[in-house]
Amino acid sequence: MKVCVYPGSFDPITYGHLDIIERASKIFDKLIVAVSCNPNKVPAFSAEERVDLIKDCVKDFKNVEVDHFCGLLIDYLKQKDATVVIKGLRVIADFEYEFQMALLNKNLDPNIETVFMMTNNKFSYISSSMVKEIAILGANIEEFVPAEIKQKVLDKLTAGKE
Amino acid sequence: MKVCVYPGSFDPITYGHLDIIERASKIFDKLIVAVSCNPNKVPAFSAEERVDLIKDCVKDFKNVEVDHFCGLLIDYLKQKDATVVIKGLRVIADFEYEFQMALLNKNLDPNIETVFMMTNNKFSYISSSMVKEIAILGANIEEFVPAEIKQKVLDKLTAGKE
Amino acid sequence: MKVCVYPGSFDPITYGHLDIIERASKIFDKLIVAVSCNPNKVPAFSAEERVDLIKDCVKDFKNVEVDHFCGLLIDYLKQKDATVVIKGLRVIADFEYEFQMALLNKNLDPNIETVFMMTNNKFSYISSSMVKEIAILGANIEEFVPAEIKQKVLDKLTAGKE
Amino acid sequence: MKVCVYPGSFDPITYGHLDIIERASKIFDKLIVAVSCNPNKVPAFSAEERVDLIKDCVKDFKNVEVDHFCGLLIDYLKQKDATVVIKGLRVIADFEYEFQMALLNKNLDPNIETVFMMTNNKFSYISSSMVKEIAILGANIEEFVPAEIKQKVLDKLTAGKE
Amino acid sequence: MKVCVYPGSFDPITYGHLDIIERASKIFDKLIVAVSCNPNKVPAFSAEERVDLIKDCVKDFKNVEVDHFCGLLIDYLKQKDATVVIKGLRVIADFEYEFQMALLNKNLDPNIETVFMMTNNKFSYISSSMVKEIAILGANIEEFVPAEIKQKVLDKLTAGKE
Amino acid sequence: MKVCVYPGSFDPITYGHLDIIERASKIFDKLIVAVSCNPNKVPAFSAEERVDLIKDCVKDFKNVEVDHFCGLLIDYLKQKDATVVIKGLRVIADFEYEFQMALLNKNLDPNIETVFMMTNNKFSYISSSMVKEIAILGANIEEFVPAEIKQKVLDKLTAGKE
Repeated sequence: MKVCVYPGSFDPITYGHLDIIERASKIFDKLIVAVSCNPNKVPAFSAEERVDLIKDCVKDFKNVEVDHFCGLLIDYLKQKDATVVIKGLRVIADFEYEFQMALLNKNLDPNIETVFMMTNNKFSYISSSMVKEIAILGANIEEFVPAEIKQKVLDKLTAGKE
Repeated sequence: MKVCVYPGSFDPITYGHLDIIERASKIFDKLIVAVSCNPNKVPAFSAEERVDLIKDCVKDFKNVEVDHFCGLLIDYLKQKDATVVIKGLRVIADFEYEFQMALLNKNLDPNIETVFMMTNNKFSYISSSMVKEIAILGANIEEFVPAEIKQKVLDKLTAGKE
Repeated sequence: MKVCVYPGSFDPITYGHLDIIERASKIFDKLIVAVSCNPNKVPAFSAEERVDLIKDCVKDFKNVEVDHFCGLLIDYLKQKDATVVIKGLRVIADFEYEFQMALLNKNLDPNIETVFMMTNNKFSYISSSMVKEIAILGANIEEFVPAEIKQKVLDKLTAGKE
Repeated sequence: MKVCVYPGSFDPITYGHLDIIERASKIFDKLIVAVSCNPNKVPAFSAEERVDLIKDCVKDFKNVEVDHFCGLLIDYLKQKDATVVIKGLRVIADFEYEFQMALLNKNLDPNIETVFMMTNNKFSYISSSMVKEIAILGANIEEFVPAEIKQKVLDKLTAGKE
Repeated sequence: MKVCVYPGSFDPITYGHLDIIERASKIFDKLIVAVSCNPNKVPAFSAEERVDLIKDCVKDFKNVEVDHFCGLLIDYLKQKDATVVIKGLRVIADFEYEFQMALLNKNLDPNIETVFMMTNNKFSYISSSMVKEIAILGANIEEFVPAEIKQKVLDKLTAGKE
Repeated sequence: MKVCVYPGSFDPITYGHLDIIERASKIFDKLIVAVSCNPNKVPAFSAEERVDLIKDCVKDFKNVEVDHFCGLLIDYLKQKDATVVIKGLRVIADFEYEFQMALLNKNLDPNIETVFMMTNNKFSYISSSMVKEIAILGANIEEFVPAEIKQKVLDKLTAGKE
């Protein structure tokens, strides 16, 4: 059985991420969406909150699990018996960064393969950081984050504003 | 009458910005240079200071106004009865970011159009952040910021250094 | 009155071009879609055919004219009393080429301004050459070229195949 | 069973292609390397020759088939009951072109997914066209094409030179 | 003594090339400008004509020689006892292609180093192919090619037009 | 004698940097590796520590010196009687940033030339920031930083973790 891991910060999950999850879940036997706890960044949502938001969105996909991890991606992959990583690409800047990460991970563990999917062009301009930025300014975010989590995202991002 | 808004942080205005202002003012009936107050960044110059610096540089352009705004760009545009946004592009990185912002704004308000001008190649290497960085190190900035504001910019940036 | 010229080979016009025409026609008083006769390329459609195909698609836009020209763009602009050129950008490769052309034209005539619009992301993957390539292979092109001209385009491209 | 198609011109196959084949064959149950007969290009090797060269290189991979096709990729995929396409990416220019092709194919058939692998950085500078160009000039190509086919490639490319 | 080779097609030489020649001649003890005879392209000017045009432009640079070569660059370098190649970069597309060529040459001969200079931004939009294209259309090319050769270039490019 | 300066933050030096040092030392009579003290960044290693780490790695190169500087690069170059700067390029993002810096420095002092080398593709995915990030997470960094300094780097980066 081919297990594929989709790592990311998902702070919060957007329709762009959900599109990758849906499409990847059709290609691989099992897909693990894995929230990474990057020690260098302060997220808007805790790892547990991010896992919960993703779970709300993927409950209809039978072969999708949601988890989080805190160390090296290659260590997490070993622990999950996974050898394939999937990443979404939107723009050239993604491409360069992800290319470097894929080569780095391949160097750290030659068994690991990273495969990429192009983000649906409908969602190519959506990023978690933009969602956070415009939600704080009062924009309607319903085209960017799934309906199931929209209110939770807004509540968290605008908490303490009034 | 076509009103065009040129938004940006202008922290501080450079010859690169001024070149876009001059050229855009010939295409549109009215051009509003709009300093944005991004809540996520601490600028070197306050919004008021940035507006004043720009005013010093554009006083000869009859159809140019200078203003600042604090929320979503699309809300500011509605308030000003403007439907066109202009942005300058210098490099690929600008292109990708601005492309995403243009698509985002179009999604938030389908009436909005963003048009782009290539920065004059004489100024393609000038950015506000480079001006700030080298001014602090003692470089001559007269080729980068208009003569009218050079001293004010230097005074502010090097204040408290001695 | 601001006259804007949208030059290109339009061999044939696609929904991507039509989207730029519609949006640019709202910004400028008059828009001239100008088919260029590049002496170095053999087009699939003659300049006259390309003009006719565009006319079929833009007949509802009151301030849009269609024309063709055979020399330097700057000479054509002078002849039409136009100082603004509009171009669509889809990808980085477009950006680099168009940046060079804009600088070249500005050098040949400093009064000329080139402004850019990002192609709607729905159409970012459509190019005239792809339409030609897949039409010959038998693909359905109705999502790529306007309904008004679909049959004419197919007839021409697949002529002599049977 | 997940069938994946790796389409390309392979004119001729290089170590860069072979690296993608080896890695993809570990991810998918079955991999079909499919030589495309692009009617717009005159290849150095006929489709049959290209298939034979690839077969010489992949005979040790149990789940890899080699084939050629002449129409639309989406039609070939249907015929093979495949829904996944794999492509290798080396550089930004690849990224932009392949991004457009992936979106085009998704538009022509929404069931199709294209996934990408980064070419091993050891091989990132190798392309079939460079191999052809330098072989004709007398360069040693043994670092670029597999040993099994080196002589056949040289014989063909330098035929008629003396 | 460090000998550096500046290879290219120079079809014809432009101010962009001349700027690289002048700047590189200050860094290296001896600079050889080497016109390559690419067997795959039909140039507008013969190799001898291109050498002569370059000689007209560089006669004041004491340490610059002009030559042409027809095989592999690495073979030419050995023959000239040179280990350094210089190339100009204008745009991203140059960067990617030249990066691949530098890696290829390093693979063919590990002693070879390729160094790059950014083209002066005044000349970043000038290419030989654009000069040829616009000269044929009647444009003034005096800002693009050195005064010494302007008439020769025009005579050749427009020969047989009347 | 041609003196070349290789400036950078080197926080810490990697095999990618060392590769540039080795190759550049063969081209120029004297190479000064110059650690810059950027006042806007808090480095992991002090300027003195970074100089010492580099010295440990380059002690076999006879014509390489290691130093640090704190103001404008152009002022440091004057002080060292150097007119050539060398920089390594790995990716497009490097290219754009370094292109801007080269133009800026040329504007501040027209005698300065910046030349570039492509980073060996074996090391193209290594950056100082990635080394720091993965070392903290417990990865083996011996493929990324020279053996001479590996332990010192790990000791510093993981100090205070237990």
